[in-house]
Amino acid sequence: MCPSTAASCVRYSSMRSGATSKRASLATWVTCAVVRAAALELGLSGMADECTKPRYLGALMAKNELAIGIDLGGTNMSVGLVDRRGRVVARSKKKTKAQEGRDVVIDRLIVAMEAACEAGNVKLADIRTLGIGAPGPVDSERGVVITAGNLGWKNVPLGEILRKRLGIPVTVDNDANVAAWGEATVGAGEGCQSLLAVWVGTGVGAGIVMDGKIWRGDLFTAGEFGHVIMYSNGQPGSRKVEEFCSRTGIVRSLRTLAGLNPESLFHKVLARHEADGKAGPIGSSSIAECYNANDPLVRDVVDSSAELLGIGIANWITMASMRTVILGGGITEALGKPYADRVEESIRRHVFPSAIAPKVSVRMTKLKDDAGVLGAAMLAWDALG
Amino acid sequence: MCPSTAASCVRYSSMRSGATSKRASLATWVTCAVVRAAALELGLSGMADECTKPRYLGALMAKNELAIGIDLGGTNMSVGLVDRRGRVVARSKKKTKAQEGRDVVIDRLIVAMEAACEAGNVKLADIRTLGIGAPGPVDSERGVVITAGNLGWKNVPLGEILRKRLGIPVTVDNDANVAAWGEATVGAGEGCQSLLAVWVGTGVGAGIVMDGKIWRGDLFTAGEFGHVIMYSNGQPGSRKVEEFCSRTGIVRSLRTLAGLNPESLFHKVLARHEADGKAGPIGSSSIAECYNANDPLVRDVVDSSAELLGIGIANWITMASMRTVILGGGITEALGKPYADRVEESIRRHVFPSAIAPKVSVRMTKLKDDAGVLGAAMLAWDALG
Repeated sequence: MCPSTAASCVRYSSMRSGATSKRASLATWVTCAVVRAAALELGLSGMADECTKPRYLGALMAKNELAIGIDLGGTNMSVGLVDRRGRVVARSKKKTKAQEGRDVVIDRLIVAMEAACEAGNVKLADIRTLGIGAPGPVDSERGVVITAGNLGWKNVPLGEILRKRLGIPVTVDNDANVAAWGEATVGAGEGCQSLLAVWVGTGVGAGIVMDGKIWRGDLFTAGEFGHVIMYSNGQPGSRKVEEFCSRTGIVRSLRTLAGLNPESLFHKVLARHEADGKAGPIGSSSIAECYNANDPLVRDVVDSSAELLGIGIANWITMASMRTVILGGGITEALGKPYADRVEESIRRHVFPSAIAPKVSVRMTKLKDDAGVLGAAMLAWDALG
Repeated sequence: MCPSTAASCVRYSSMRSGATSKRASLATWVTCAVVRAAALELGLSGMADECTKPRYLGALMAKNELAIGIDLGGTNMSVGLVDRRGRVVARSKKKTKAQEGRDVVIDRLIVAMEAACEAGNVKLADIRTLGIGAPGPVDSERGVVITAGNLGWKNVPLGEILRKRLGIPVTVDNDANVAAWGEATVGAGEGCQSLLAVWVGTGVGAGIVMDGKIWRGDLFTAGEFGHVIMYSNGQPGSRKVEEFCSRTGIVRSLRTLAGLNPESLFHKVLARHEADGKAGPIGSSSIAECYNANDPLVRDVVDSSAELLGIGIANWITMASMRTVILGGGITEALGKPYADRVEESIRRHVFPSAIAPKVSVRMTKLKDDAGVLGAAMLAWDALG
């Protein structure tokens, strides 16, 4: 914890004992965990117990010391109020409903921000800065979402629109980039100047941090790891990372093989899923259920996907000589350490030169679902200087 | 041409007309092409004709305005005297003879530097700075060659050794990196902040420039493009870029197929090569001879290698979003534009997102064999500030 936050926590204590100050009038709502952590770090265990209940904390959440971070996805928009040290102190979540159109989605972003502010008992007008991670390539210099297929957006000047409406600085970047930035600044990669963060979920994406900065590339499209070709002799549809390693790719392989393996647990899970008439595809948790039960079919398909993902990451390291890899996303989180270990083992076996293999560090995401919100907010703080 | 060089050329003219100056005593020898180019740029065509013969040019080559660039390979060491604008004004070349041991090779480096200085009519003591490109990973911060298989070196503090012997600053970096730096500063990538330079010869290597700097990576091993795995389902020995795209890989494929194609021109070239009892492998020029004669076997193998190289480069662009690619090395130079066009076409077809394909720029090396010498020297100039 930084000294100023610790000092604020002590100030909070004096506020509670009856002292009044100008800062008290700026009181804001914070989650108890943050204050509890602060108190524990200060060795104030008694106070830490006090902090287990939400409180008004004017000193800790002083005016203009909160950023908003937004993870804008095709399905959901997640909003968090984040302090300079990267702690989410209040949040809200809404459906994106992209089909209702760009303007409605942007209006809903404002409503979601207001909801998060209400949860944090601050006014939107008191927020210092805003960061957003959006899907697809983003011209981060101009704050323009170039294309976002799952939003149906093309060349949307999201930064300018929100800057005009809110009157605060707005930073916009690609969602995988900001999540990687979250891990690099306050997550599993804290202290690393360079890292590759790989998100394995519905698709496979990556964010690259190089030399202490997000690497966006000349064309703002960096990190499209899912579209890297792994089988140069493969047919279109069966040669890219995403086509084998994403949840979608894994389920596709499993569905193809399930009919040949009627005795497999996955076959039963699939039958149950269909009998339930559940909407949507088989989720990561169902795959994990079979994986953890040692279903040979799922073990085989998932382990092969981990091996392939490892080769893809090893190729990146062979080219970029990057020692830190963060693994995140729905598949990684659901399958956990056994999966990450497989990926790591494959990376080590395929990287060149082999002498660097022991130096490669593969870590699980620390921020999980918050990586996007935190990364967006931290990027916004960084832009303020 | 920079104004100062142009001015120097005019000063040269006044020297020739009888004017004496202190600078004249520092006269150095330059290749005629440099002065001729300078004169032509100044519109002094008469003087350009004068300049077609080598001259002493004190003003142009003033004391302390020359760097030495060295390309240290397993077979040869190339040394050049290079001015600040990246012109090679004198050079020397010697066999490396690595088998004679590290100290003998370093002594020979000094001899080669003295030979280049003699050719340039300057003293080694008057050289301002020295840059060296060496094979294998190099700790460029400390000037240590970590491993150089073809030299048999391990952890050789080349920078420190030469700094002590010569008393001037010494910059050491990986050979593919410095060659890429040459192209980025005074070659085909001049003006580009980021680029990938791919060298296709005996092996396949690459140098990466990102954001105006050589990208060496956390472990000083960046750019090992030859060792990127292209067939994830391939057997060791038949899955990496180098195993198909290098001269060695191409010749291996051709040798395997030549027996099945006795009517092919390559079969005849191979027979001739063996009948001549020539030492060493089939060269790039022999491959080019068959390629240009439209030998179907060589066309097929070379075009397939270009396709694969293009996929590998496209994968890099999909990850790093880099618009500029430089192609160099023995195979590229021997096969020329038809080969480069094939590689380019494959890159465009395989890069993601496809919208960036038209923005990718693939260029042939401008510096050719001088890329290493020039890059090493330019890096040394840059280190001076």
